[in-house]
Amino acid sequence: MALIVQKYGGTSVGTTERIKNVARRVAKWKGQGHDVVVVVSAMSGETNRLIALAQDIQEYPDPRELDVVISTGEQVTIGLLAMALKEIGVPAISYCGWQVSITTDTAHTKARIGSIDEERMRGDLNEGRVVIVAGFQGVDENGDITTLGRGGSDTSAVALAAALKADECQIYTDVDGVYTTDPRVVPEARRLKTITFEEMIEMASLGSKVLQIRSVEFAGKYQVRLRVLSSFEEEGEGTLITFEEDENMEKAVVAGIAFDRNEARINVKGVPDKPGIAYQILGPVADANIEVDMIIQNFGENGATDFSFTVPRGEFQRTLTILRDVQTHIGAAKIDADDRVVKVSIVGVGMRSHCGVASTMFRTLAEEGINIQMISTSEIKVSVLIDEKYLELAVRVLHKAFGLDAVSVA
Amino acid sequence: MALIVQKYGGTSVGTTERIKNVARRVAKWKGQGHDVVVVVSAMSGETNRLIALAQDIQEYPDPRELDVVISTGEQVTIGLLAMALKEIGVPAISYCGWQVSITTDTAHTKARIGSIDEERMRGDLNEGRVVIVAGFQGVDENGDITTLGRGGSDTSAVALAAALKADECQIYTDVDGVYTTDPRVVPEARRLKTITFEEMIEMASLGSKVLQIRSVEFAGKYQVRLRVLSSFEEEGEGTLITFEEDENMEKAVVAGIAFDRNEARINVKGVPDKPGIAYQILGPVADANIEVDMIIQNFGENGATDFSFTVPRGEFQRTLTILRDVQTHIGAAKIDADDRVVKVSIVGVGMRSHCGVASTMFRTLAEEGINIQMISTSEIKVSVLIDEKYLELAVRVLHKAFGLDAVSVA
Repeated sequence: MALIVQKYGGTSVGTTERIKNVARRVAKWKGQGHDVVVVVSAMSGETNRLIALAQDIQEYPDPRELDVVISTGEQVTIGLLAMALKEIGVPAISYCGWQVSITTDTAHTKARIGSIDEERMRGDLNEGRVVIVAGFQGVDENGDITTLGRGGSDTSAVALAAALKADECQIYTDVDGVYTTDPRVVPEARRLKTITFEEMIEMASLGSKVLQIRSVEFAGKYQVRLRVLSSFEEEGEGTLITFEEDENMEKAVVAGIAFDRNEARINVKGVPDKPGIAYQILGPVADANIEVDMIIQNFGENGATDFSFTVPRGEFQRTLTILRDVQTHIGAAKIDADDRVVKVSIVGVGMRSHCGVASTMFRTLAEEGINIQMISTSEIKVSVLIDEKYLELAVRVLHKAFGLDAVSVA
Repeated sequence: MALIVQKYGGTSVGTTERIKNVARRVAKWKGQGHDVVVVVSAMSGETNRLIALAQDIQEYPDPRELDVVISTGEQVTIGLLAMALKEIGVPAISYCGWQVSITTDTAHTKARIGSIDEERMRGDLNEGRVVIVAGFQGVDENGDITTLGRGGSDTSAVALAAALKADECQIYTDVDGVYTTDPRVVPEARRLKTITFEEMIEMASLGSKVLQIRSVEFAGKYQVRLRVLSSFEEEGEGTLITFEEDENMEKAVVAGIAFDRNEARINVKGVPDKPGIAYQILGPVADANIEVDMIIQNFGENGATDFSFTVPRGEFQRTLTILRDVQTHIGAAKIDADDRVVKVSIVGVGMRSHCGVASTMFRTLAEEGINIQMISTSEIKVSVLIDEKYLELAVRVLHKAFGLDAVSVA
């Protein structure tokens, strides 16, 4: 007997048939004696349809009114899922965000949850009902409807689990867990039984889009036991996201290999090595709302230095145009650029206590003749920028070098 | 400077282009210095789409959850209309039913409005905003979403006008007012500048589907000045629905001719003329949820009588089956039935003080050789049931006989 919060995404509730499937899955948990709270997204495609309607009227829709419109997607799903549960004899009741006081700040389209009033839900659970709550939405202090941004339903689920002190928050998605790397690149990739919050955040921010990153941060902050599962498989325990390294568990130093194809490198060569030069280069780029990822400045000699950074590929040409405008002003000798690069990262809390992880990475890549163009590191990850043609090779050899090719632990 | 409540139906807001048109019309009233509150329906087709989704899951959808689902239609429209007004520089704000406390009873899918908290809307109006409210929906004492039934947006508008003590409630629709009869049947039909509430209720209940009948009753109860206008014409003053006969106005005895094609007649002949016979015949029909319209029992002779009533055509066969089951039990000699009949009615408060109106009707029909099968009367209407092949002829000759063919008063 546990209290479980389950979240089903847009694909899992994309048709009335799939909603019936979700109802059967929820009924199974309920039948095992658990209390179940379900958070759902809009049916897949619905949010985009609503945004298109809004943009038909305003190029940049008014945020308050956009939230009024797009929050209806989840509202439709909660009603339909409640019907599907009742249809198979399971008592259920649906709530919009405002009905269970999911209060947020007033930042429309990207609001943050402040508090949740769990009293009404607790009453329903005590009377044996499955409680269904609309994800992605809340209500602010003015009584206005707010939404939490794309993927916000994950955050809704975690916040509800925290408020209800649930035993587990299960995120049902179209993958069956978190993998050591993308199985489409490395067939030997295996599902992780556990991953720490810190690793999950690095994996998520590096392009493994299993969970919305804010929901993982939220779960870490409120110590919510979080599990990623497939909504299309009957069995399977998915991946549990843990708060700390489990000492009893034989844990690999590196948890996984993440990669990101959306990178382009800019190298500003021979700039005067003086204070303020980084700002003179990146200031105009930031002013143009271009998000810079990796940044590296080499130690200079003869009063000149090289300055490198990466931007999303879609912003590559625009960034170059901006820099060529300021090149003379900042006194740069040359601008070298390449949009055929990728970022490959090894992630793992184990590397905190194991030296030599980075050097193993560099040696492994060198043995394959893969040139490293840029390096950046954090406490639990090492990222390298390489030519995109080496992506698959790099991920495969690193996966093997760090012992991730082992037989599945599942 | 007046406070106007305007209501636009599903056809008027059926596309984003049409929503922009509504915004321009609202802006025009606002530009003339009026305070404007707008009530909107769901975009045409949307409510049916949502009901179909629900019925895909439950043949008879749970009423509470159905209200959660179908109330989203109006919610989308209010957000879009607010955007459209802002886009042309008119300050506007949208509210769902619960946000302005349109409180109803708990009768899901057919709730009745109890009260409205106008304070927040009053504040917006004072600050120069157009207030947009979702029609068709409210919230009950449990904080659950309710809906008011088909056409409920008319009632929402009237209730808001009553709560705000608006100077006028304007119902924009796809006709430009209330006519003396259907112009498709009688080309000489003309738009009425005014009609009384009682006449409007009789016209509406007799098949002139311009306004939801409950909204007219509501307007009468709270003395709301109600006007029906076309949303597709720029000019035109529509039809004003008045509280009492205007003494100064030259008023025809009969305001209009209504008709209803959805009738089928059942005649139970030779039943014993004893107490309880009506119940024995109609009880089983009512138990089958079949709505009976006209009911007539003739004075009997020789201890036997004839009993006649009408039902909607779609229920004709089912009603016959039920009656044949009980025929022996009630001791009826014969059942005669006809589903090729129509009801034609003359409506007008003037007939209260003018005798001879009914006889003029009967004579007019007799002169054309039209046989009357049943008659029923109320204080301000006389209805006859006739063979459907005479419908157009009957309406035309009555329209002329009661002086309705006059040159338009517009």
